[in-house]
Amino acid sequence: MGVEAIWPELVALLGDRVTRAEAERGAHGGSESYFEPMLPDAVAYPATTEEVSALVKLCAGAGVPVIGWGAGTSLEGQAQAPSGGVTVDFRHMNRVLSISQGDLTARVQPGITREELNEELRATGLFFPVDPGANASVGGMAGTRASGTTAVRYGTMRDNVMALEVVLADGRVIRTGSQARKSAAGYDLTGLFVGSEGTLGLITELTLRLHGQPEAVTAAVCGFDTIRDAVQAVTETIQMGIPMARIEFVDHATVEVFNAQSGAGMAEMPHLMVEFHGSPSAVEEQARSFGEIAADHGGHGFVWAADAQERRALWTLRHNAYWAIVAARPGTRAVVTDICVPISRLAEAVEATQADLEAKGIRGPILGHVGDGNFHVILQFDPSSPTELEEVKAASHRMVDLALRLGGTVTGEHGIGIGKLGFMDREHGDGWAVMAAIKQAMDPGRILNPGKIVP
Amino acid sequence: MGVEAIWPELVALLGDRVTRAEAERGAHGGSESYFEPMLPDAVAYPATTEEVSALVKLCAGAGVPVIGWGAGTSLEGQAQAPSGGVTVDFRHMNRVLSISQGDLTARVQPGITREELNEELRATGLFFPVDPGANASVGGMAGTRASGTTAVRYGTMRDNVMALEVVLADGRVIRTGSQARKSAAGYDLTGLFVGSEGTLGLITELTLRLHGQPEAVTAAVCGFDTIRDAVQAVTETIQMGIPMARIEFVDHATVEVFNAQSGAGMAEMPHLMVEFHGSPSAVEEQARSFGEIAADHGGHGFVWAADAQERRALWTLRHNAYWAIVAARPGTRAVVTDICVPISRLAEAVEATQADLEAKGIRGPILGHVGDGNFHVILQFDPSSPTELEEVKAASHRMVDLALRLGGTVTGEHGIGIGKLGFMDREHGDGWAVMAAIKQAMDPGRILNPGKIVP
Repeated sequence: MGVEAIWPELVALLGDRVTRAEAERGAHGGSESYFEPMLPDAVAYPATTEEVSALVKLCAGAGVPVIGWGAGTSLEGQAQAPSGGVTVDFRHMNRVLSISQGDLTARVQPGITREELNEELRATGLFFPVDPGANASVGGMAGTRASGTTAVRYGTMRDNVMALEVVLADGRVIRTGSQARKSAAGYDLTGLFVGSEGTLGLITELTLRLHGQPEAVTAAVCGFDTIRDAVQAVTETIQMGIPMARIEFVDHATVEVFNAQSGAGMAEMPHLMVEFHGSPSAVEEQARSFGEIAADHGGHGFVWAADAQERRALWTLRHNAYWAIVAARPGTRAVVTDICVPISRLAEAVEATQADLEAKGIRGPILGHVGDGNFHVILQFDPSSPTELEEVKAASHRMVDLALRLGGTVTGEHGIGIGKLGFMDREHGDGWAVMAAIKQAMDPGRILNPGKIVP
Repeated sequence: MGVEAIWPELVALLGDRVTRAEAERGAHGGSESYFEPMLPDAVAYPATTEEVSALVKLCAGAGVPVIGWGAGTSLEGQAQAPSGGVTVDFRHMNRVLSISQGDLTARVQPGITREELNEELRATGLFFPVDPGANASVGGMAGTRASGTTAVRYGTMRDNVMALEVVLADGRVIRTGSQARKSAAGYDLTGLFVGSEGTLGLITELTLRLHGQPEAVTAAVCGFDTIRDAVQAVTETIQMGIPMARIEFVDHATVEVFNAQSGAGMAEMPHLMVEFHGSPSAVEEQARSFGEIAADHGGHGFVWAADAQERRALWTLRHNAYWAIVAARPGTRAVVTDICVPISRLAEAVEATQADLEAKGIRGPILGHVGDGNFHVILQFDPSSPTELEEVKAASHRMVDLALRLGGTVTGEHGIGIGKLGFMDREHGDGWAVMAAIKQAMDPGRILNPGKIVP
């Protein structure tokens, strides 16, 4: 059986909001990264939880895969459809349902993007801090346990999702968590769904933790002579407990691209990009403490971005780094990979990665959320070369080896998807079998995003 | 079958570290709260993960229940043995295995108590912040997802456990999480075990997040004319984002006991007890901001405790409240219950609870970690009365109703155990069935702490 068998019911349920058109299927089978397209058989655009539930029941009855789709910004092929099925695009479920100023929370639908959400929050004095760079949907961010530049201060999606509404594999709808700030009432189902990449259920509503817009914000960039100097400054800053709002590393190669593509005018050396949030006096104190640590490690050429426009320019530069790096070498593509290591091993990890890339002659700018011990490499390859893709994949595998050897994890924030499935056994051992047992218990028909996370 | 069938193997494994002596069984079958004793058939004192694994394999083979035991401070009967079996007391697994100053982490065994851990950390400049009051074991705290006075600033056990070693129901040993500060590599098994009350596995090692000892600490108490005034001050403080290290509420009845039992000399009215952590200037700024909010709500009679000894006296008073309240009425016992509601509903919840108790003539001092929306009532009863226990239980059930009606949870930090099993269905609906499916997948023989959390 397949979508064909339930097509009349799907059309009866969703009308013209379900399609098998080639263009729609093609638009939902790709990836921002290096994976080959894997198309679903159909794409659905439900508008309500009830429609999602009914759709899942139909698919469950026919053994048809169901794959969630937010903004299509995942990097490890999370939303591709290796076994076909129905991709559920949440674009029509993109509303803010309620905002509680008193509780610093918002109930939202999964299809809203983080930029849309923050736009809606602007007048409230609150904001949603998790910022993976891409303008991802919050449902997708929850699915991948996204984090990004501000996680060092505000945490990841794990820390900022309080409650969920989820459609299970048999179409039942459950609510996890509560509107209270903590609970000890049984297993943490909210935490289980966050990071499950749509393999255990489809998220149809989220209660998110909001934060007050800081009274004062200051950002800065500063240069360092060596990667080790920059990274040591980060490590020491974290160890000192300075509450950085962002602390990002970009290497020499990334700065070159910033200069060439955006006229950034930065000295061509490794840089840290930092931001401080708080009261005016707290921000001043943090900036002074960070400045002292940076100076101890030879940091120089501080450029401060005090006003909102300068700060926006700074972070736009950072967020567009991937595209700028790829665009700087027309015709190339890239494997974007991320690992996360203990802070104490970060300098060693970044240096070893750079040395490995140099030794192999691979171009791979390094940048990342180093306050969490998390960094990315944008491994560029020429798609017309018969060997380059395999060479950069091998380099990314060596990064994984390194992360595990240093007590870290194969991905800090990009998730598993298709790209890192092969490393789950090595990272988790029998814990992977536990994940498989949970999957089997919650989705015995294996219809939810098959081919991801579990064997 | 039962323990009898595997007794020779248990003795061969553990020698005199396993016993069926009545006194030992009795010491492991009680509860700090109102539950009747439910004794295990035997008590084991393993010294290594390998011994725990071997013990669980033996028990699994014979269908014998296995119940973890830390310091025996749980409040909902979590460690009682309604189906008998072997209670695993972790007192010999109480070492700090390693401390990483650079990563702000410690690897510890589950039997160490939080006070022992902080004693060992003293010279490092780091501390472990989670403080439920009782000197609980960290394994037990993870099992119950404990929190306490400092959760408002440092989070609960959910936020402060990074990685675990766990013995599964079939004796396999897995490691969850990593030494990195975040990960997106599959299901969050660490988060699943935290709060599972030993029903999914036995924790044999924890990697805990540590924090730098704050440069400056100041604490204070201040009085309010009404409960509503005090609670409104808390709500506003949280909404303003002031990073309180502790913000505790004690009602008039609790203050009476403090004065009578400890000569606290406090005005007999509701009080807040607060603490600020940070740099000297940050602490000063926080204290000033809080003072302004308190004044807006009629807070008065501030008493500051700047030195460590005064602060210790203050928090000892708070931590011993339960015992002091019970001791103040010799011959009484108490049902200690906790609920947690959204901050915006906190004043309503506390007032409604007090009004209900007054209407029913039940003595129940109210106190709690109100910065999280979490409060406790110590419902006193005369054990010789034929009706009082049922009356206070009924009052605690009305609190549960209230919590759920206000969008909260039936327990903020005490957990489910035996005492709140009857409310799981109402709080979670089909989510409880999901928990049961996970339990079934991970412990098909139902040997791990049977009778807790799931149906």
